[in-house]
Amino acid sequence: MPVEPATVYVLNGPNLNLLGLREPHLYGSETLAGVEARCRRVTAELGLACEFRQTNHEGVMVDWVQEAREKAAAVVINPAGLSFRSIPLLDALKTLDCPLAEVHITNIHRRDPLYQHSLVSLAATGVICGFGPFGYEMAIRAAAERLGAGH
Amino acid sequence: MPVEPATVYVLNGPNLNLLGLREPHLYGSETLAGVEARCRRVTAELGLACEFRQTNHEGVMVDWVQEAREKAAAVVINPAGLSFRSIPLLDALKTLDCPLAEVHITNIHRRDPLYQHSLVSLAATGVICGFGPFGYEMAIRAAAERLGAGH
Amino acid sequence: MPVEPATVYVLNGPNLNLLGLREPHLYGSETLAGVEARCRRVTAELGLACEFRQTNHEGVMVDWVQEAREKAAAVVINPAGLSFRSIPLLDALKTLDCPLAEVHITNIHRRDPLYQHSLVSLAATGVICGFGPFGYEMAIRAAAERLGAGH
Amino acid sequence: MPVEPATVYVLNGPNLNLLGLREPHLYGSETLAGVEARCRRVTAELGLACEFRQTNHEGVMVDWVQEAREKAAAVVINPAGLSFRSIPLLDALKTLDCPLAEVHITNIHRRDPLYQHSLVSLAATGVICGFGPFGYEMAIRAAAERLGAGH
Amino acid sequence: MPVEPATVYVLNGPNLNLLGLREPHLYGSETLAGVEARCRRVTAELGLACEFRQTNHEGVMVDWVQEAREKAAAVVINPAGLSFRSIPLLDALKTLDCPLAEVHITNIHRRDPLYQHSLVSLAATGVICGFGPFGYEMAIRAAAERLGAGH
Amino acid sequence: MPVEPATVYVLNGPNLNLLGLREPHLYGSETLAGVEARCRRVTAELGLACEFRQTNHEGVMVDWVQEAREKAAAVVINPAGLSFRSIPLLDALKTLDCPLAEVHITNIHRRDPLYQHSLVSLAATGVICGFGPFGYEMAIRAAAERLGAGH
Amino acid sequence: MPVEPATVYVLNGPNLNLLGLREPHLYGSETLAGVEARCRRVTAELGLACEFRQTNHEGVMVDWVQEAREKAAAVVINPAGLSFRSIPLLDALKTLDCPLAEVHITNIHRRDPLYQHSLVSLAATGVICGFGPFGYEMAIRAAAERLGAGH
Amino acid sequence: MPVEPATVYVLNGPNLNLLGLREPHLYGSETLAGVEARCRRVTAELGLACEFRQTNHEGVMVDWVQEAREKAAAVVINPAGLSFRSIPLLDALKTLDCPLAEVHITNIHRRDPLYQHSLVSLAATGVICGFGPFGYEMAIRAAAERLGAGH
Amino acid sequence: MPVEPATVYVLNGPNLNLLGLREPHLYGSETLAGVEARCRRVTAELGLACEFRQTNHEGVMVDWVQEAREKAAAVVINPAGLSFRSIPLLDALKTLDCPLAEVHITNIHRRDPLYQHSLVSLAATGVICGFGPFGYEMAIRAAAERLGAGH
Amino acid sequence: MPVEPATVYVLNGPNLNLLGLREPHLYGSETLAGVEARCRRVTAELGLACEFRQTNHEGVMVDWVQEAREKAAAVVINPAGLSFRSIPLLDALKTLDCPLAEVHITNIHRRDPLYQHSLVSLAATGVICGFGPFGYEMAIRAAAERLGAGH
Amino acid sequence: MPVEPATVYVLNGPNLNLLGLREPHLYGSETLAGVEARCRRVTAELGLACEFRQTNHEGVMVDWVQEAREKAAAVVINPAGLSFRSIPLLDALKTLDCPLAEVHITNIHRRDPLYQHSLVSLAATGVICGFGPFGYEMAIRAAAERLGAGH
Amino acid sequence: MPVEPATVYVLNGPNLNLLGLREPHLYGSETLAGVEARCRRVTAELGLACEFRQTNHEGVMVDWVQEAREKAAAVVINPAGLSFRSIPLLDALKTLDCPLAEVHITNIHRRDPLYQHSLVSLAATGVICGFGPFGYEMAIRAAAERLGAGH
Repeated sequence: MPVEPATVYVLNGPNLNLLGLREPHLYGSETLAGVEARCRRVTAELGLACEFRQTNHEGVMVDWVQEAREKAAAVVINPAGLSFRSIPLLDALKTLDCPLAEVHITNIHRRDPLYQHSLVSLAATGVICGFGPFGYEMAIRAAAERLGAGH
Repeated sequence: MPVEPATVYVLNGPNLNLLGLREPHLYGSETLAGVEARCRRVTAELGLACEFRQTNHEGVMVDWVQEAREKAAAVVINPAGLSFRSIPLLDALKTLDCPLAEVHITNIHRRDPLYQHSLVSLAATGVICGFGPFGYEMAIRAAAERLGAGH
Repeated sequence: MPVEPATVYVLNGPNLNLLGLREPHLYGSETLAGVEARCRRVTAELGLACEFRQTNHEGVMVDWVQEAREKAAAVVINPAGLSFRSIPLLDALKTLDCPLAEVHITNIHRRDPLYQHSLVSLAATGVICGFGPFGYEMAIRAAAERLGAGH
Repeated sequence: MPVEPATVYVLNGPNLNLLGLREPHLYGSETLAGVEARCRRVTAELGLACEFRQTNHEGVMVDWVQEAREKAAAVVINPAGLSFRSIPLLDALKTLDCPLAEVHITNIHRRDPLYQHSLVSLAATGVICGFGPFGYEMAIRAAAERLGAGH
Repeated sequence: MPVEPATVYVLNGPNLNLLGLREPHLYGSETLAGVEARCRRVTAELGLACEFRQTNHEGVMVDWVQEAREKAAAVVINPAGLSFRSIPLLDALKTLDCPLAEVHITNIHRRDPLYQHSLVSLAATGVICGFGPFGYEMAIRAAAERLGAGH
Repeated sequence: MPVEPATVYVLNGPNLNLLGLREPHLYGSETLAGVEARCRRVTAELGLACEFRQTNHEGVMVDWVQEAREKAAAVVINPAGLSFRSIPLLDALKTLDCPLAEVHITNIHRRDPLYQHSLVSLAATGVICGFGPFGYEMAIRAAAERLGAGH
Repeated sequence: MPVEPATVYVLNGPNLNLLGLREPHLYGSETLAGVEARCRRVTAELGLACEFRQTNHEGVMVDWVQEAREKAAAVVINPAGLSFRSIPLLDALKTLDCPLAEVHITNIHRRDPLYQHSLVSLAATGVICGFGPFGYEMAIRAAAERLGAGH
Repeated sequence: MPVEPATVYVLNGPNLNLLGLREPHLYGSETLAGVEARCRRVTAELGLACEFRQTNHEGVMVDWVQEAREKAAAVVINPAGLSFRSIPLLDALKTLDCPLAEVHITNIHRRDPLYQHSLVSLAATGVICGFGPFGYEMAIRAAAERLGAGH
Repeated sequence: MPVEPATVYVLNGPNLNLLGLREPHLYGSETLAGVEARCRRVTAELGLACEFRQTNHEGVMVDWVQEAREKAAAVVINPAGLSFRSIPLLDALKTLDCPLAEVHITNIHRRDPLYQHSLVSLAATGVICGFGPFGYEMAIRAAAERLGAGH
Repeated sequence: MPVEPATVYVLNGPNLNLLGLREPHLYGSETLAGVEARCRRVTAELGLACEFRQTNHEGVMVDWVQEAREKAAAVVINPAGLSFRSIPLLDALKTLDCPLAEVHITNIHRRDPLYQHSLVSLAATGVICGFGPFGYEMAIRAAAERLGAGH
Repeated sequence: MPVEPATVYVLNGPNLNLLGLREPHLYGSETLAGVEARCRRVTAELGLACEFRQTNHEGVMVDWVQEAREKAAAVVINPAGLSFRSIPLLDALKTLDCPLAEVHITNIHRRDPLYQHSLVSLAATGVICGFGPFGYEMAIRAAAERLGAGH
Repeated sequence: MPVEPATVYVLNGPNLNLLGLREPHLYGSETLAGVEARCRRVTAELGLACEFRQTNHEGVMVDWVQEAREKAAAVVINPAGLSFRSIPLLDALKTLDCPLAEVHITNIHRRDPLYQHSLVSLAATGVICGFGPFGYEMAIRAAAERLGAGH
């Protein structure tokens, strides 16, 4: 169990650095910086630290999950395009002992079949999708609830 | 659009009346009355009314969704065993104009294949699963966020 | 075989009470009352009685089909959301000896796969889809043709 | 849009020239000449002309549909064995702007799987099956209803 | 555990009220009243009480299973058309602690694929099919054997 | 039809000689000798003879079924591992004119997919599974009921 | 039944006019003229007439089968590329009352999946494949055996 | 290559010893002894010896094929129920260098799916089905044609 | 190998005669005459002759491919609706020894599944799709590059 | 839109650095340096700049596509082994507004199933395969045609 | 646990008696006697006894596995053609408590789909394939390592 | 072929750096350092050098395989989570000319379907799974046996 102040890792997968810039009819106009601000506000409110990152590289994501295994009190992940095929990421997430909340900005179940079955869900504590950037806040609060934080 | 005070319908499907009584290793020990208390507390906090119901009958659930179509500002549904096969329920939910949050107590994606593909998700605004009874709170807050309530 | 005046049962499945109110781009703007008026006009023209009903409950539909088994000269059914999964309804329809005409307002073969394969068709004399509310008239005339009525 | 008198093309696919001669337990004893007589009677009653044809050749059927594209007010087609595999026919039918009614003499949904999924239905306005030769009459009336003819 | 005299619930699903009246080549000519008489005779012989019911409504069946959960020493169910698709019924049956014997009058494995895979079997202690109404007697004796009754 | 005393063949497939010795959590602790004693007791009670055998060889099982075709009044078979793939056994069983009761000690529908679909059921009069060794008694009684024996 | 001398129609599908010219490692070096000579020799030996044809057109093949329906005592067909997808040809062949022998020069079951499942076999009396041009002789003799010819 | 007189092995699989005794509507009334007589007559006519056998045991069939590998000039096999699942038989047949003709009495392509895909065909020179016992004669002649015998 | 001047056959399948007239949002507004002009310009530039044709008939297309087998230095084909199901066309194309370039005006991989898997690609040297009528130019240049023409 | 001189990004996926060195029977003997020279010659001829790169890393490819989103007038991609499974790459490519030409050196539709379905095609303007290194030239010209360059 | 000297059963399935004689390009030229010599050398080196057998009969293999259950310290099996379909063998192997090493001479994952999925692997401790006869040595050493032998 | 001392590359995929630290019930308690010590001991014994590496990055693994293509006498790979989906890795491995031994610590055939079908096996000389860390020793010895090393 990590020392205080407990840190929530918020990890973002490929192409999320373009959030708000591409396909706004699908993903909305809020940028990843906006999402990060949300996450920092909510973690602060709950007395938690926030480690917020984005990568386009599967291997880097796996490295970060292994780091979180040592240092995080909880993990929030939006695996984006890595959700559906990455067994290395799934394997890394399975090694976590802390709460793991999976977030998708869109309701993936309404998208085309390529995007409907997240492998990551097999390792997650719970899953939130379709509520836009607000889903990150929900994920952090759900993780905190598991930790008994912010109460 | 319903008149004030805006009401959130929280609709529960078959066998949820046994919550806390059956398979506690899977569903936990909190009863449906406990869930109802949670929902009432959160809706009150957000300045919303709460209509909380449970049924084992698909037809009754369809009737209620049609009623909610007239009277609800938002709908939270845990369709339970109706999630996976009920096209009448899906059709009814598609007629809603208000936010629709789907909740599952367990992470259905980790269960056996019968329980992995919710048809209801095709009509939902968003989906929350795996966070236990706390998921109802998340669903109400997410619906409220959509409505601009409680801010 | 029922006594005179021969009656056509016109049975409507879940959510058809919302006809004309929901998704008019898909289902048109005619309400179920309008459909009923059509059916009464055509049956009257053919010298037949009309029993017109709608339910959201699978069990009620099964009860009505069993009743029709005793009392109807022909059955017209728009099973709506019960078309695709309801084996109890299929089983009940298989017990009918009279003509059974299945109607769908839309061309279900152009819809998404959930809505393409009607189980009810396995028990029907014939099937009509895609011609809107006019399909009910066609169904009644086809059933009457089988009965030798209205000629 | 074609000039008056508006013409309904009634196009029949492979082996329908044997109607009434083969497998009467399945297709009945009425010949294709009988069907043509029906169609001419109904179109006349509705103030429409009738162009009635049959071919065993997919390419000829495609040519006729292209002709109908220019000259027909409505098309009724019983594609028979071309229903299930012919993408050239489907593509030709998709170019039609007028009403297109697909007819099958038998209820194809009760036949073996080879005969259950008509590609033509993807391009049709509506589909009628299982009502025997009477289905042609229904198809013409449905097309006429769309045209506002015969009223 | 229920008080003495121990009661066996015998629950019958949709359309079984027509037993003996429909498709006798498939289901035989014995009516449901005849089946009930059999069940009462065998339970009496074994010193057990018998609660014998039939419904066409899935929701009612779920209610009865929940009641049996409180009151029955054993449950015999012929789920009929609910066997193959009803997850609410499956979920209700999974909450039973007492012996559950599933009966089908016909050998469902020889029927068409729609009728071959009973979901109810996933919750049953054991399954009996193909022995006609005698299967109910077998089911009661098997349940009694589990209870140590009638010995 | 065989001469008196009518004989029931009870045929056991591969590895059933290890019954009670392997995987007792799955198959229980009763040995095949115990099962044989049960069968002899019940057949004697019903005035029938019992021919009880076990083999690990598919070909031997086929030979025995062909022998039973000549000599048996009824056949009870627990095909074990031959249930799921053996078309030679299925073909042999299809040649029987007498009642054929298939028994499985476990509820095969709850096992993994390899063990869920018995080909033998396609030839059986009826099937019993999940009631342990008691299932053999049920099978003999069901066969006897078909023969009118023991009444 | 046709008048004497009984005629065997030998019908060859698309690209068989190139026999011996293309892919000799697969189809051998004998040309279609060689095959025709074989067929004429065998039919003459058996006291039968031979009508030998080839076409690349599905519609022509259907026309010929309809002609054979009137005039042939037996039909031998090598449907070549029409074997696997042509429902119009299947439907035409189903109308034949005389023996129908299907021939393939190669063993189609050893070819790639596109060429393994002949629809024509659903209408054929019997099928011969893999014996090269000799298969035509076998087919004619098998048809003659059915007719009682040549004995 | 075997010494003169060249021998054709005719190998028959499970349940063919019942030929003519079971399901005559399907397999005809000729017994296996009748088939053997046919085979002996044709081989004698062609100057060949005939080794004719039947077994219900897969292992015995494999042994015989290995023997034929040493001693046979050609093999005719009706694998019956071993056709569809036996990889040991397929492997044994693949080791043959001589012509291998597979025979089925019925047209297996018209039977239910269990009986449609012979694995043996993957190793056969050619396949004959649907021509009844006459198919054995065809097979021997086809094998002889490959050997240049009887000419 | 054809004599000089080397000719490129450009063969167009069903409904391409409607190019520019139907579904311009999908296929653009250039007509087939425009495409032909492009092809003639490019072949002339490369010192090649051009044989440009269109048909709605599969059999005619097969005939033309057989002709091209004799006379063409290269073949460009847009098989349109024949791409996906026509084994006769595939078989004819496999007999070509010259370069074969397949063209589709649209990117078929983005269309619905019916249009995604071209059988023709199994015989083609290469495939070009999605570049509109310009794709024909590309195809001719690619074929010429293979021939060493125009350099 | 990028400033002049407009640049075409030519991006090459995993193992293409071994081009000409591995499996020359499949990929030919031209090296990636040779391909680069071709691309530079053609872009220069068309007045375009060329950015030519290769990587074995999915994440790097995604980064480059994001860079191209800012800087490229057109993108040519040979995704190689990333074609078939990489949703991160697909997502990145979907964000491009400029022409995107996908190239494969071999005709992937003739390869084994693992290599037949490129996800990248779902995002591409058009696809070229099977024309060897010449395909890169075709792709650049096709992209240029879209841009109106080189005319 | 068996008494000293501990014995390794090396069991070989159908057609392995032909090893070195058939398909040497696939299986190599070493005979089964050669394999046996290898196994005896390695077991002797490790201080173990070796029981080496081969059979073409599934039933015999099941008998041997049951014998090994009593007498073997470890089992090495090359199930050959029994690997892929034999549930009786799988069931027998599941009853073993000792180490079970499965060996295949070829890399079955590179063979055609019939040979890719060994059921036996579901019961094995470990699997070795593709290393030719040397794989038997590896299997024995791996089993010994589990037993702590030879160290 | 590399110069002496011949080197074995032992390459480890994602998350294997956590070996012994995560899921010890599945993977055991030996760390990757322990595995490396094993490998160094065995290669030294065989007179070979050992290059032992681990990475979480697919691209790095592809780079290493390309390096091994130049420098390794043999490759041992435990691809871990890259086994099942990575076509870039498969393509890289296919370019190797030296022996390639694939190792899995667990018996992947007993794991859930995601982990059962290794693509890497399509390129491997042989595969070893289920023998724990000892499998690395086996793999090195098998590779050495191929090289004739250590004898």
